[in-house]
Amino acid sequence: FGRRFARIADRHAQCRRVTAPWGESFDLDAVAAAITDETALVTMVHNETSTGLLNPVAGVGRFAREHDTLFAVDGVTSIGGDVFCIDDWGIDIAITDAQKALAAPPGISAVYVTDAAAALINGESAPFYEDLDWHLRKAEDNQTPFTSAVPLFRAMAAAVEAINREGLSARIRRHRRQATAFRKGFTAMGLSLFPEPTGATVRSNTVTAVSLPDRVREDPTAFFGAVEERNVSLSGGQAHLGGEIFRVSNMGRLDDAQILRGVRTVGEAMGDAGVPVSRADTEAGLAAAQRVLKQ
Amino acid sequence: FGRRFARIADRHAQCRRVTAPWGESFDLDAVAAAITDETALVTMVHNETSTGLLNPVAGVGRFAREHDTLFAVDGVTSIGGDVFCIDDWGIDIAITDAQKALAAPPGISAVYVTDAAAALINGESAPFYEDLDWHLRKAEDNQTPFTSAVPLFRAMAAAVEAINREGLSARIRRHRRQATAFRKGFTAMGLSLFPEPTGATVRSNTVTAVSLPDRVREDPTAFFGAVEERNVSLSGGQAHLGGEIFRVSNMGRLDDAQILRGVRTVGEAMGDAGVPVSRADTEAGLAAAQRVLKQ
Repeated sequence: FGRRFARIADRHAQCRRVTAPWGESFDLDAVAAAITDETALVTMVHNETSTGLLNPVAGVGRFAREHDTLFAVDGVTSIGGDVFCIDDWGIDIAITDAQKALAAPPGISAVYVTDAAAALINGESAPFYEDLDWHLRKAEDNQTPFTSAVPLFRAMAAAVEAINREGLSARIRRHRRQATAFRKGFTAMGLSLFPEPTGATVRSNTVTAVSLPDRVREDPTAFFGAVEERNVSLSGGQAHLGGEIFRVSNMGRLDDAQILRGVRTVGEAMGDAGVPVSRADTEAGLAAAQRVLKQ
Repeated sequence: FGRRFARIADRHAQCRRVTAPWGESFDLDAVAAAITDETALVTMVHNETSTGLLNPVAGVGRFAREHDTLFAVDGVTSIGGDVFCIDDWGIDIAITDAQKALAAPPGISAVYVTDAAAALINGESAPFYEDLDWHLRKAEDNQTPFTSAVPLFRAMAAAVEAINREGLSARIRRHRRQATAFRKGFTAMGLSLFPEPTGATVRSNTVTAVSLPDRVREDPTAFFGAVEERNVSLSGGQAHLGGEIFRVSNMGRLDDAQILRGVRTVGEAMGDAGVPVSRADTEAGLAAAQRVLKQ
């Protein structure tokens, strides 16, 4: 999704990319070198669901501050499921969507901007209905400039109330426990996580990527079909990672039974797809996941 | 809303306005004179809810065709409630919203484009998520390029199914009958409609504007408060028409009892506000409305 961020930026500005192969940590020194006093805006994705990695926002934010440039962070799949420190990380613009870690229906997004960033926004250069200035002015009176997606605003409010009831810290701890349970479960049944984070990059709190065994790569449909038959939803890899990994999300309001069902489903579907994951391996995975969930 | 259309156009192109005072019909000859072979796009609003007037799309479409320019029509409050002839009127781009005459929840819009118009669209000059090219390509596979407002799409589908069940022609006739009932009801109780359409402009099928009597103009809150007390929703005038008119909509799925309740509410609220609309006048209004509804 970092690539998408760059494609969005390309439409509006001259954009300098700092890239790394999918699943590899990017080089913080290269980021530092790419930011100059002429840089207007640094953007990055916090939680990279395509690879299951969590990028070091704090470090990049420090570089942005050093050059006094704005810092925009895509927190779409982390806000509501992981620690996200707007002030401490020096974030000027934070973005999230309803349908990911906030666990609301899809269709609306939320944008946070500091006063300093707001002062620089010239909404008139945007299409009429995307005039962010105008949205911010109306937001001061709890209004929108135009007819808004009222049902989705109400649904998001209900989702945020649910987060408040659970407590954000408790929710983040639950996500961490459930993500860890997935990982321990999958590795205990003999699967390998993808990728191995290095440097300042760590594993995501909300999504887990697992390498598909060679047997599955030969014919991924057998595995994914066996999962679907069990009415469980997991994703393949995006772009060139298609057929190389599967990804499972623990965003939102999952309970521990759903996590265990996910572990069991993967074990059984691997068996169905001809991978040597035995019933005992699946049970070992379940036991490992259960140990984590009990912590 | 014609003014808003021009404000939207101002952000993207050099725009030539043909204006008329609110409530007055615009001059078709002036429109004809304003369109040249250099004109890229002619835009207009079909049903002007701010004044309760229906603008002559067919006539303007003829001028657009003569100069081979694209013709975009805002059908937000007419599509689903009045006749809207895309082909006969030479419309290249038609726009509507969910929450008006389609009677679905707010939050999404629908855009129709002819193949000829689609061929001229360069989505890459738009912000990433508004790349209409891309939306059109994905629409061919019944897809959207990005996560979409799924609940609102489903709600709009349900609303369109309801329209199909009623039958579009029957629905348009019902709207005409109900709008006429409002007008006959209000005039029979002694109120005056606003404005008097002239030329090719006629009264809207979906919204009725009524001049506020002098007594109400002195203190509009008494009248609008008395309406609100009765749990009926009607609107004041927009912009400089505030305090001069009220507007009542019959868009969507209203039944005849709701139309009559609207007529009764206005009569009673006028009485409460000190306007000489007697109980007998209100009953005369109701009888007039009822006669229309029975047709």
